[in-house]
Amino acid sequence: MSLAGTGPRRDGPARGRPRSEAVERAIVEGVMKLLEDGVPLAELSIERIARTAGVGKAAIYRRWTGKEQLFVDVMRAAEPPDPELPGTSMRDDLVVLLESLRLRGLAGRTSAILHNVRAQMKSSPRLWTAYHDTVIQPRRRVGLDVLRRGRDNGELRADVDLELLNDMVVGPVLVRTVLRPDAELPADLAERVVDTLLQGLRPS
Amino acid sequence: MSLAGTGPRRDGPARGRPRSEAVERAIVEGVMKLLEDGVPLAELSIERIARTAGVGKAAIYRRWTGKEQLFVDVMRAAEPPDPELPGTSMRDDLVVLLESLRLRGLAGRTSAILHNVRAQMKSSPRLWTAYHDTVIQPRRRVGLDVLRRGRDNGELRADVDLELLNDMVVGPVLVRTVLRPDAELPADLAERVVDTLLQGLRPS
Repeated sequence: MSLAGTGPRRDGPARGRPRSEAVERAIVEGVMKLLEDGVPLAELSIERIARTAGVGKAAIYRRWTGKEQLFVDVMRAAEPPDPELPGTSMRDDLVVLLESLRLRGLAGRTSAILHNVRAQMKSSPRLWTAYHDTVIQPRRRVGLDVLRRGRDNGELRADVDLELLNDMVVGPVLVRTVLRPDAELPADLAERVVDTLLQGLRPS
Repeated sequence: MSLAGTGPRRDGPARGRPRSEAVERAIVEGVMKLLEDGVPLAELSIERIARTAGVGKAAIYRRWTGKEQLFVDVMRAAEPPDPELPGTSMRDDLVVLLESLRLRGLAGRTSAILHNVRAQMKSSPRLWTAYHDTVIQPRRRVGLDVLRRGRDNGELRADVDLELLNDMVVGPVLVRTVLRPDAELPADLAERVVDTLLQGLRPS
């Protein structure tokens, strides 16, 4: 659940791994519990988090350089995990990536914690930047890699702008999940978007 | 600048049109001036708006049923006007609609008033709903009409879901304007999105 540069610090005094992971999980779950209880992000002090998790403040500072980094890991823990790519074709990989985006959108609708934390994150530019750099940006890179492989394989026209194409793949799903929270997210949405994009809109 | 059901009331005592329009404009510009001065939306009382515009409170109540309706008209006045559709083809109409969305996105980046009012609107569910119903929803309907004509003309495959297609047209531009405010919005973005969608991604 942690990310290079933001997750647990590896330079602290080494302890047994299982015990250390249990402490980490207790801290992340402590933050989640406080958020579920409706405590605003801005009021979550390290002291309060430590008390809820039943650990000392030092246990938090040993693992995270600050609250921002801890919250980013909490967000990741609350979200569905990143998917495994089948690797059978660009088309299949895109469908899996987009399906995961759809599921994340559904989770954001049903999980109060995800919904609230995302909304609160946006009001803190520092936190939003940290979330963007460590969660959104790497996902975007995975999508671009899939498209680049497709172009190299000949599954994709050679003349397309991959950055634009990535926005064309995720755009319709993001519009529905983020901008129109009452829009439908049917089970076949990912497949339909990818296949419509591949085939094009002109009559054959 | 006004909309059926939300704009100036037509049932009040009729006055000379030019004078009435000048009053209407003074009121809308009064709200803009207050917003430009940094007054939060929540603190804009009808009394303060009337004082800034140099009119009586009754002049406002004669024209708008409430603050929400007035603010929606202010938003419309601050945005670029809706475009004229060339009507030459579905492709051309889509490019014009999408270009207008791109320009609106650029305006939102450079106009502090647009940016702030949009942000403040989102924190008021009632105001956001009014804005959605009277500004966003009609634009969406125009896009769907263009696609429907294209399907009837044979410019579009007959088997596509028009609602989904609309999200596929606007999605990439909305992702860049709303979700990634530092993304590029190049001059040929609208054309590239529409032509890529029409042609499809497979090598020919």
